[in-house]
Amino acid sequence: MTNEPLTLQGAVCPTPVQQRDRIVLGHGSGGKLMHDLIARTFLPAFDNPLLRAGDDAAVFRLSACSRLAFSTDSHVVYPLFFPGGDIGRLAVCGTVNDVAMLGAQPLYLTAGFILEEGLELAVLQRVLASMREAASEAGVQIVAGDTKVVQRGKADGLYITTSGLGAVLTGVEVGGAQAKPGDVVILSGPIGDHGIAVLGARGELGFDAAVQSDVAPLNHLIMALFDASEQIHVLRDPTRGGVATTLNEIAKQSGVGITLSEQSIPVRPAVRAACEMLGFDP
Amino acid sequence: MTNEPLTLQGAVCPTPVQQRDRIVLGHGSGGKLMHDLIARTFLPAFDNPLLRAGDDAAVFRLSACSRLAFSTDSHVVYPLFFPGGDIGRLAVCGTVNDVAMLGAQPLYLTAGFILEEGLELAVLQRVLASMREAASEAGVQIVAGDTKVVQRGKADGLYITTSGLGAVLTGVEVGGAQAKPGDVVILSGPIGDHGIAVLGARGELGFDAAVQSDVAPLNHLIMALFDASEQIHVLRDPTRGGVATTLNEIAKQSGVGITLSEQSIPVRPAVRAACEMLGFDP
Repeated sequence: MTNEPLTLQGAVCPTPVQQRDRIVLGHGSGGKLMHDLIARTFLPAFDNPLLRAGDDAAVFRLSACSRLAFSTDSHVVYPLFFPGGDIGRLAVCGTVNDVAMLGAQPLYLTAGFILEEGLELAVLQRVLASMREAASEAGVQIVAGDTKVVQRGKADGLYITTSGLGAVLTGVEVGGAQAKPGDVVILSGPIGDHGIAVLGARGELGFDAAVQSDVAPLNHLIMALFDASEQIHVLRDPTRGGVATTLNEIAKQSGVGITLSEQSIPVRPAVRAACEMLGFDP
Repeated sequence: MTNEPLTLQGAVCPTPVQQRDRIVLGHGSGGKLMHDLIARTFLPAFDNPLLRAGDDAAVFRLSACSRLAFSTDSHVVYPLFFPGGDIGRLAVCGTVNDVAMLGAQPLYLTAGFILEEGLELAVLQRVLASMREAASEAGVQIVAGDTKVVQRGKADGLYITTSGLGAVLTGVEVGGAQAKPGDVVILSGPIGDHGIAVLGARGELGFDAAVQSDVAPLNHLIMALFDASEQIHVLRDPTRGGVATTLNEIAKQSGVGITLSEQSIPVRPAVRAACEMLGFDP
């Protein structure tokens, strides 16, 4: 017999120890671990009576019997946290803005989470706190949710899909097909900030661009717009593809041409410099 | 100099060739590839005027000014196809049923897709066709959607998060907290079919269980229930966790005890046999 080192392998308990600081597959199994995760982590973060009812769907009555705007966005971003935001803030704002872009006041959100086994609970909690903050800024409630856990290496930390429901303002008719000859294009701020902030956080710039993402709920801005003018025809939140793609879509939907003056498009010097180095057109 | 083999590496075009049969990262970039994917694959599958409007959110007016039920579910399943269903059918039925369980007629769905780079387009098309078929069975429209593409190895083919909106039937008050002493529990069919069908498709049973998943839209069944009786207090679609967990949740929400008679719970012989071999309690 060789002089084998002492091993305790046979004596180790094969039952998985309840890990309290990381997501395990059991958190998605529908059993006690999942219920504890929901009760201790999700419910306190988004606390409201509709969610706390704990049914398969949230039930509510809208104050006015208006037209509804209904939208969804899946959110995948690496890294999960970047200057000016994170995946949670993005998930709330993206859907709030999509609903607001149809002239609707966003009211209720749902959120579906796909969590990767091994995700730190502290990271999840930070994302949920950020979602709560963004929802509070926007004045919306997260009223239903779902959580699935996938094996390590089958996601990238976590993915969040949010859906949003809003009440369209009375008399408002906006949409991509409503652009008319004579309309002017208004940009609410400089372009490219979010993209460069995320690339910077990935370390793909090779330098510090000192640019913050401008991810924010825009519904209050949109409501102020409608207070100020009845001549608003199209609203859109340019995300992937940027301003150029967005305006192309509108031109196609409305059957109009749109002329842009490049020097009128605001681009921060830091974003312009980063784009020049990378060979991008902001 | 050594006699190196001729290499054409320097002459190979670095531009990615447009792959027509698999998902590439460019399908999620917001540019032409993504628009083509949506126009050629998603829009024809779910065709309806609200989706075709192509705005950030779908806008509609409900025929009656009723209470609304709003729900979401993320769907991750391996394998994507199993006897009796697939991830697409699951994604539509899961959310349709969650909405129906609150006594609501499901009307509109949204769907957020997270696609893994390398996914075969033919697989995606098969899933979308299945979603369309399930939506048609349920009588719902998929009115808004979103598509993201993640790098190879950051998902498991595809994940689908659906959200659903329905109009609660007038006068109906159902919910997990409404169970009352004297209520009886009615099961709509045998239990465990879906779980064993998926395990079988994974090859984890080691034998052929010949069991089909019972995934189906239940909203028409639910509406027939309300036509037949005004004494319905709680409805639930037991998914993960099964009947035991579901009844425990209801008991907790309603503050009641529920007594089950094991021999009254229908279990197909094939499911019972598979569970016995695996050491599961159906």
